Amino acid sequence: MSHSKAIHNRIADGGYAAWLSYPSLPSGRLQDQYVKWCGAVQATDEDDTVQAALREWQRGIESMLGIQAVKVREQAPTGLSVVFGTFQGGNPLIGSVFGEETVRIVGPEGFAIRTSQEQGCIAIGAVSPAGVLYGVFHLLRLIGNLEEIEGLDEVIIPVNGLRMINHWDNFDGSVERGYAGRSFFYDNNHFTNDVERIRDYARLMSSAGINAIAINNVNVHALETLFISKYLPEVASIADQFRVYGIKLFLSVNFAGPMHEGEVCTADPLDLGVRKWWQDTAAGVYAAIPDFGGFVVKADSENRPGPFTYGRDHADGANMLAEALEPFGGIVIWRCFVYNCKQDWRDRKTDRARAAYDHFKPLDGKFKDNVILQIKNGPMDFQVREPVSPLFGALERTNQVIEFQIAQEYTGQQRHVCYLVPQWKEVLEFNTYAQGAASPVKHIVDGSLWGNRHSGIAAVSNVGNDRNWTGHLLAQANLYGYGRLAWNPELTAEEIASEWISLTFGTDPDVSSVVSRILLDSLEIYESYTAPLGVGWMINPEHHYGPNVDGYEYSQWGTYHYADHQGIGVDRTVKTGTGYSAQYIGLNSERYDSLETCPDELLLFFHHVPYTHVLHSGKTVIQHIYDTHFEGAERAAELLASWSSLKGTVREDLYMQVEERLRGQASHAKEWRDQISTYFYRKSGIEDTGKRTIY
Amino acid sequence: MSHSKAIHNRIADGGYAAWLSYPSLPSGRLQDQYVKWCGAVQATDEDDTVQAALREWQRGIESMLGIQAVKVREQAPTGLSVVFGTFQGGNPLIGSVFGEETVRIVGPEGFAIRTSQEQGCIAIGAVSPAGVLYGVFHLLRLIGNLEEIEGLDEVIIPVNGLRMINHWDNFDGSVERGYAGRSFFYDNNHFTNDVERIRDYARLMSSAGINAIAINNVNVHALETLFISKYLPEVASIADQFRVYGIKLFLSVNFAGPMHEGEVCTADPLDLGVRKWWQDTAAGVYAAIPDFGGFVVKADSENRPGPFTYGRDHADGANMLAEALEPFGGIVIWRCFVYNCKQDWRDRKTDRARAAYDHFKPLDGKFKDNVILQIKNGPMDFQVREPVSPLFGALERTNQVIEFQIAQEYTGQQRHVCYLVPQWKEVLEFNTYAQGAASPVKHIVDGSLWGNRHSGIAAVSNVGNDRNWTGHLLAQANLYGYGRLAWNPELTAEEIASEWISLTFGTDPDVSSVVSRILLDSLEIYESYTAPLGVGWMINPEHHYGPNVDGYEYSQWGTYHYADHQGIGVDRTVKTGTGYSAQYIGLNSERYDSLETCPDELLLFFHHVPYTHVLHSGKTVIQHIYDTHFEGAERAAELLASWSSLKGTVREDLYMQVEERLRGQASHAKEWRDQISTYFYRKSGIEDTGKRTIY
Repeated sequence: MSHSKAIHNRIADGGYAAWLSYPSLPSGRLQDQYVKWCGAVQATDEDDTVQAALREWQRGIESMLGIQAVKVREQAPTGLSVVFGTFQGGNPLIGSVFGEETVRIVGPEGFAIRTSQEQGCIAIGAVSPAGVLYGVFHLLRLIGNLEEIEGLDEVIIPVNGLRMINHWDNFDGSVERGYAGRSFFYDNNHFTNDVERIRDYARLMSSAGINAIAINNVNVHALETLFISKYLPEVASIADQFRVYGIKLFLSVNFAGPMHEGEVCTADPLDLGVRKWWQDTAAGVYAAIPDFGGFVVKADSENRPGPFTYGRDHADGANMLAEALEPFGGIVIWRCFVYNCKQDWRDRKTDRARAAYDHFKPLDGKFKDNVILQIKNGPMDFQVREPVSPLFGALERTNQVIEFQIAQEYTGQQRHVCYLVPQWKEVLEFNTYAQGAASPVKHIVDGSLWGNRHSGIAAVSNVGNDRNWTGHLLAQANLYGYGRLAWNPELTAEEIASEWISLTFGTDPDVSSVVSRILLDSLEIYESYTAPLGVGWMINPEHHYGPNVDGYEYSQWGTYHYADHQGIGVDRTVKTGTGYSAQYIGLNSERYDSLETCPDELLLFFHHVPYTHVLHSGKTVIQHIYDTHFEGAERAAELLASWSSLKGTVREDLYMQVEERLRGQASHAKEWRDQISTYFYRKSGIEDTGKRTIY
Repeated sequence: MSHSKAIHNRIADGGYAAWLSYPSLPSGRLQDQYVKWCGAVQATDEDDTVQAALREWQRGIESMLGIQAVKVREQAPTGLSVVFGTFQGGNPLIGSVFGEETVRIVGPEGFAIRTSQEQGCIAIGAVSPAGVLYGVFHLLRLIGNLEEIEGLDEVIIPVNGLRMINHWDNFDGSVERGYAGRSFFYDNNHFTNDVERIRDYARLMSSAGINAIAINNVNVHALETLFISKYLPEVASIADQFRVYGIKLFLSVNFAGPMHEGEVCTADPLDLGVRKWWQDTAAGVYAAIPDFGGFVVKADSENRPGPFTYGRDHADGANMLAEALEPFGGIVIWRCFVYNCKQDWRDRKTDRARAAYDHFKPLDGKFKDNVILQIKNGPMDFQVREPVSPLFGALERTNQVIEFQIAQEYTGQQRHVCYLVPQWKEVLEFNTYAQGAASPVKHIVDGSLWGNRHSGIAAVSNVGNDRNWTGHLLAQANLYGYGRLAWNPELTAEEIASEWISLTFGTDPDVSSVVSRILLDSLEIYESYTAPLGVGWMINPEHHYGPNVDGYEYSQWGTYHYADHQGIGVDRTVKTGTGYSAQYIGLNSERYDSLETCPDELLLFFHHVPYTHVLHSGKTVIQHIYDTHFEGAERAAELLASWSSLKGTVREDLYMQVEERLRGQASHAKEWRDQISTYFYRKSGIEDTGKRTIY
């Protein structure tokens, strides 16, 4: 490994290259295999995207193998090469390696990859240049993970059509819920035009499989309202960069846009002037960006304008925008994050968890077919633990995407490590029973269950202008993992972690084993010292960092735990509670509604119970709270200890970053432990059977 | 009263004129008396201050009586006039009305006032022009309050030497803990040069008896550090305006100033370079402002720099600055608000309440005689209820001023009415037992108990650029009342309220009766629905507005209540607690230390007791909490009802302002009631015997 280390230390980039850092590979049989095949490359399409794939290939091969991938137009002197291009690109090798059947099934974004000993090549073929690029990233990933490449023969197609990132970047350069510095798109109400950074961002996103990015915050402020008009030239420049990497650009729009800019003084979706304004505006956008993706809309939510102002419903609002985009093939992504954000904490009847379902279920089937509803994974707001939103399964005739949050707003804000892929997996595997026994969320969001025209996954970005993109280096794994999971939900959290580790740190098995353990344990650890049994929201208001058990208890946000001296939890059952449990289908509804069958980890989400209630685990609720918090803080400290074992093995610049964050986490986890356990001890008066120090 | 109302409505100034609005007086015997004497005025001193007094007199007389006060040089044709001037000013009438004895006793800021039937004049004489001005404001106040002026014969001398206002205005225009708009001195790192507003502010302050104003925040930021150098010309302009009204200008300084500006790279108070820097700087300040008051210093407090950095103590630091100011007659006001602001909430041994005493008591006698320690009224920080700081009585050989907060940081932020004069009165009357049986705080701060060279009262301003100066119109009563009380602590809260009401709204007895009741009840009402039994700090962190029982419970600020399911309060007794009670002298120490004798209203400040503890009132602690909160919220609603009875009587523009604030208060008081009672009900599980709705 000494060669590898030398390379590593030479490029101490602070994590900027992320999973495209192409660590040099150890010598051995596989390296020999790679060197044998990769010395020559053919990429004859002149398309920008294929040429970008070629550059990426040459960069990766040189960095990983220490050899040049020489571009050739015919078969190399060695007789072996890597060949990639579109089927229609005219390269005879591609034509001869792949049959017509392959071309037929590969689809607009998929690719075929095959090692042909007869033809002396590893060939990647695709319908689209983007498919070629995905194939090249795939082969680079195989090599970076020390996989065999001599027997390849696959057709790989992304499972989800829309694989989207939502930026919550504001034009002033701030990032709402951003924990990795400021925006790299904007600063001080100007576009940064940071061509290099934006290109590298597109490379990273494309390599993970992302094909759509909305570049501005869903809360669209005054100047951002003009992105679809005055600022189109600057937006188009970003779209040009994205296009090379197969990414469509989307914009969040202000539903009240016509009132800001137009001659109309209403935003009523049924007003003809308003409709015309949006149609004209859409035409303007497509004139500047012919492959523009569409609009993302947060309407009638948290004080944003929307159709309710005019006595219209969400379908009226979304369809009006959809009509404007339809001629150009654009889509409307309409968020379902709609609830009463001025609730009275004294009112136990109103239940924020019910809101999305109550608002949107009645509208099922009323949306145009270029509208997609974007539904948060849970009914509340990206808590560390929530049930899956009951809207999944409830909308049978509506396009929908699930919305995850890669940004760790409620999961440690990229100061704590919290690998979220296991959470997303759990959500995607959740069986809704919507169409019989096997109706997991993943088959709703991939469009197969209901046969939707549009479907997929969206997520809130966790990047900023920090050198390493995500603040916490290990938070890169969430960004990478999100893309990979959106591409193929069948990948396991372990597989994704393993890929990311090799691509970031190299293939040292010790590193892989330690980092993998850290990542895979991290969510459970974070949950254990923060939010017991699905309770949620025990955090400081506004900034959402750090413990504050009553932080939201007397607020207007509909986020309560109702802890008193006897017990805690929200009664969402049918008989005595808010009836939220009835929004689920069949077995799910029964399971959650019953105290006997409700899973421990969601107990306090669905039931108000005494502290002395005995969990399925055999522990009382109060003892569970004490135990998890003490164990969680201990395990957080162990994360630091584990990582420390890698000192001298992991590249110094990366090592130091993570050590500093894990040290902070270990300390902050103790603060969580002490505040939460003290709060509940003082409130319940029940002693910890473990007799640990509680204040 | 019809004439009066017409005048009132003509000058709907939104409260700008405040207690110098000179409402017109009702006709009748007293008005005839005033008209008889006030038709002519003599003011022969050419001094700016006396001429300002003349203008004020003419303005007041015209507005209150509807007549011109004609300036004459000799006796008026009617044979009656008002005459004012300095004794040495040469007016023969003044010379003949006042004897040598009067001149001898009146002192530098006092004045004599006498109605001489023989000489046909009401004469005001003083040693200083400022004394003349105070006398004129006095006579205007008598008239505005419908007092007899035919038998005047008094010498009136301010009881406290220093009567100071501290502004917490920042150069960027923000006001720390400001609730009445932004600064009128600064905006966006410029001086506003708002000559008219600053002059009217000086008029208001002078009329209330203020003689010293520090114009910048005690937290001195980078640019404000340069007020004593680069920005001296602008500061001097303000001093010029203040001087006309007998007010000395002070500046808050940055203890680390030499490091920002000088060639020295330390702020060590024993360093010769540092001392020279301050000496040179002081010389520069006095060259620009010959009557500059001195420096206000917050050092080694809440992360401000100070002598501790260099292993020096507060005496070293203060004396170094005092040495620099001494040649020019300047003084150093050194704040005692020094405590550990990074405390661990788990640590029950450290007690913030002890801090000022522990820091400063050992330094008694070590300060130069142009140093004054500025001691907050209580040991914490301007809570609605605290005991009096035990430093009063503990410092026998040290100049000291008490610091009040007119700004309602913790008392409703000028959105709730809270007339603070009764609180200040209670503090000033508090018997410290420092010198035998009668040693009230008022005799410490007026310098009489220990014979201090400098002494007095300071307070944090509640003004901003809101049209009515204080946001809440009724908060003007605090500003006025503070000045009046600093001038003469023997005035009662009722007298001060009555004066202010007449000067602001006119002399309608209905108005006086209603507003007086509102003011005098307001502190008790505010206390009752917010902070029971001296507990304090149950507020939202940072902005300090609104209820949050655990808001500071797990913080670093040393501000805890330790509520658990059994009880609440901080044990500050000697045997089992922090020993804070021993910082008091004799009977006070015993009274606070004992659960039997500790007054109910401070019980939870000194003792941790069960909710079932029975108060002297006969109620349990928990029932007291419920009762006071329900009664308090009801009484808050009654304030609105009382005020509403004045609709049509009080000038419309003033009426509306107050109505809107009282409406908000009534609603917010219910929020306080419900949050506090719910918190303690949930925590204790003890039912309200009144069976009112608790959530």
